[in-house]
Amino acid sequence: MRTLRMTLAYVGTAYAGWQIQPARATVQGILERTLATMLDEPIRLVGAGRTDAGVHALGQVASFATARTIPLYGLRRGLNARLPESLRVLAVDEVPDSFNARSDARGKEYRYRLSTAEVLSPFEAPFVTQVLTPLDPEAMAAAAERLVGRHDFTSFCRADSTIEDRHRTIVWSRVTASGETVTYDVRGDGFMRHMIRTIVGTLVEVGRGRLRPADIDAILAARDRRRAGVCMPARGLTLMKVHYEDDGEAA
Amino acid sequence: MRTLRMTLAYVGTAYAGWQIQPARATVQGILERTLATMLDEPIRLVGAGRTDAGVHALGQVASFATARTIPLYGLRRGLNARLPESLRVLAVDEVPDSFNARSDARGKEYRYRLSTAEVLSPFEAPFVTQVLTPLDPEAMAAAAERLVGRHDFTSFCRADSTIEDRHRTIVWSRVTASGETVTYDVRGDGFMRHMIRTIVGTLVEVGRGRLRPADIDAILAARDRRRAGVCMPARGLTLMKVHYEDDGEAA
Repeated sequence: MRTLRMTLAYVGTAYAGWQIQPARATVQGILERTLATMLDEPIRLVGAGRTDAGVHALGQVASFATARTIPLYGLRRGLNARLPESLRVLAVDEVPDSFNARSDARGKEYRYRLSTAEVLSPFEAPFVTQVLTPLDPEAMAAAAERLVGRHDFTSFCRADSTIEDRHRTIVWSRVTASGETVTYDVRGDGFMRHMIRTIVGTLVEVGRGRLRPADIDAILAARDRRRAGVCMPARGLTLMKVHYEDDGEAA
Repeated sequence: MRTLRMTLAYVGTAYAGWQIQPARATVQGILERTLATMLDEPIRLVGAGRTDAGVHALGQVASFATARTIPLYGLRRGLNARLPESLRVLAVDEVPDSFNARSDARGKEYRYRLSTAEVLSPFEAPFVTQVLTPLDPEAMAAAAERLVGRHDFTSFCRADSTIEDRHRTIVWSRVTASGETVTYDVRGDGFMRHMIRTIVGTLVEVGRGRLRPADIDAILAARDRRRAGVCMPARGLTLMKVHYEDDGEAA
């Protein structure tokens, strides 16, 4: 048996999320089926992040075990020939048998894109969330910066979450603006469901002047979902990269 | 009656081209239907360029006459609320009654994008044609430059074309490269069907070393479709801009 690691990119709007579901087109489901056909053996994929329906990826990682000895280059080429164009295998590497894409992940990078343009380019529309009020990116950047460090993110996770320990470490949390596009880049050791989209919803409140950057501290301290902003649409969010020990970087 | 001019952007892969056809989703068809519903009168649109199925636009222009006095801003907003996200009205202007988007066009700009990447980003794939051989962009640029000026483009238009005068003037014709992407930008007073895609197919032959830049002169002089390269796929082509007298530029 060999353990293989795939790096994946996909257009999230084409799928009902990462995780396999009966009768829905999911990234995991399509990949497992395509791999099983190519390798003629049942395949169980482990994904680094279970992206929600509509969330995109440019650097998702998934691992699986196989008894086959097919060359990695041929496997990548064969997969890309069979998969829909909205789902690409960027790389396939052999990794130690102990490797698990989910439990070994040491950090993840996500990007969220907002646009204040009144009319979005149809080329970009699937990857951006439109906000039809002016935004102050400097105030948003100051608010974002306050999330860096280790915090209890209860205020930013789903009210019905059953996760016990809601502490997460944010390595960077940056807002930049270019023209009518406002981009949020975040790296952390892990993120709970809806956490980044709720952070962005809160940053938008700051950008609209309804919250001040310093209010972020009180929202974190409150550990109350009602204090943070709305969960923004999935379409603006992209999983950019997953970090592992072996990439020579800390989380 | 007022004459209005719309500037339009669309993802060509979502449509069976510009021109209205029975039982096919075309850009003209969807726009005429949506305008007729909004304005409660029959609408006949004139498009500057009849883009083929799969060809994209970031600056298509279309004009129509209307008896209604709806404000232009409200018309744009209402159209974008009703149209699919893959088709956007970027601007609506009132123009003199004599204006005709097709016959008044003095020039057009198109862009064609090629990628030599082995795996295309799924975000970009619908807008790029993949070429899986190395390309020499400098040779392609030298070949492209030879098309500037007034020429008989018979060699670059469909063999079954019934167009009498196949002379066209090319204002610029440039190849640039960035990473694995090779971009062809062309401006001319007009283009025949498949002309740009056939020019690009010929430039690819130059980029692969199967033709030399100077061969372009002989291909033009031959007035024989068989001498030029293949007609490249529609997906790489985008109508960028249409020029009119009133934009203060010559074609």
